Amino acid sequence: MKKFAIILAGCGVYDGAEIHEAVMSMYAIMKNGAEYQIFAPDIAQHHVVNHLTGAEMPETRNVLVESARIARGNIKPVTKLNPRDFDALLFPGGFGVAKNLCSYAFNGADCSVNPEISVLIKEAVSLRKPIGALCISPVLLAKIMGDVTITVGPDEGDAKNVTAMGAHHIPTKHGQVIIDEKHRLFTTPCYQLKSTIVQVAEGADNIVKAMLKVM
Amino acid sequence: MKKFAIILAGCGVYDGAEIHEAVMSMYAIMKNGAEYQIFAPDIAQHHVVNHLTGAEMPETRNVLVESARIARGNIKPVTKLNPRDFDALLFPGGFGVAKNLCSYAFNGADCSVNPEISVLIKEAVSLRKPIGALCISPVLLAKIMGDVTITVGPDEGDAKNVTAMGAHHIPTKHGQVIIDEKHRLFTTPCYQLKSTIVQVAEGADNIVKAMLKVM
Repeated sequence: MKKFAIILAGCGVYDGAEIHEAVMSMYAIMKNGAEYQIFAPDIAQHHVVNHLTGAEMPETRNVLVESARIARGNIKPVTKLNPRDFDALLFPGGFGVAKNLCSYAFNGADCSVNPEISVLIKEAVSLRKPIGALCISPVLLAKIMGDVTITVGPDEGDAKNVTAMGAHHIPTKHGQVIIDEKHRLFTTPCYQLKSTIVQVAEGADNIVKAMLKVM
Repeated sequence: MKKFAIILAGCGVYDGAEIHEAVMSMYAIMKNGAEYQIFAPDIAQHHVVNHLTGAEMPETRNVLVESARIARGNIKPVTKLNPRDFDALLFPGGFGVAKNLCSYAFNGADCSVNPEISVLIKEAVSLRKPIGALCISPVLLAKIMGDVTITVGPDEGDAKNVTAMGAHHIPTKHGQVIIDEKHRLFTTPCYQLKSTIVQVAEGADNIVKAMLKVM
């Protein structure tokens, strides 16, 4: 049975992992006959956002602890993720990717990536493990590797930023998957477009199916 | 288009709404051609649980604010829910139902139900609106109405408790839906059984399909 490592960035679209994308990734993996283990970095969130009002809250939360809500407690710190033990990596999206896993939400093309995530992605690429990235998480691939072919949805601000990082950007519509065959990267827009939960499920299903084909 | 009101109890299985059940309920409703609006009570959570360790955390969180994470901000307080405006109510599960919407987790068969939730359910029943309840949330129906036919999964402790409340309990396996035709109640076990996320999705899909048949 093929095994995915899913990497989460918290719990909630505005300061963590996008919950629908995370859950639909898990669902797609299992529905297509594979299995998964969930990981997250054991670091403080950049901040906490009240998802009702959009206001910042005077709290601190931990990315691993909050990600554990989506994982029902079955989660490990990303330092325990050896890509040799898995057939693929998968990054759901959400602002947590751009705030906790890297600083893209604040620094755009000049962002820095969390060192644990950077080492992990470089090692997985060198081992020729397929990497899937939903929504905004392809910025991690662009920042770390530069010359990659990816999508972050429509050809707007985020597309200009990943192009400035050296990436070739392909605009996409709902459910489309862009494949960088050279680096074995798979990207799909999900909530980078205005989407229904059914469209997000389709995007997750399409990217998992495309990744399984090369595994 | 038929419209469901989904009522959440926070965000995370151990102190709020079970996330997979909530997301799969939304997915099932939309996939089957209906629509939804999400609600939650604007009250403090009973407590906050670290989902990595299971320990209680020295924090306070609000049920509506945390539920907004699952709803991506598109949520309303349950006091704004007029059942006349909807074709059905749906309660996903999670310990938040048993800790925030009622006191079942602490008082078992002697629990009390949050007055906003109690009024809502009584009004929906009097209007003959179908009510769906996943996982542990059928305890709300048993406590409020007593003489109902429901399932809370296998025939164990929770089944004894709802029987003590006056309910007729039917043990169920994965994906089974119990229908109380007299009161128009629909219940299915989901994570009351050891389940995969695919089995939870099937349970949510089955209950939504059964409810749509009578709507």
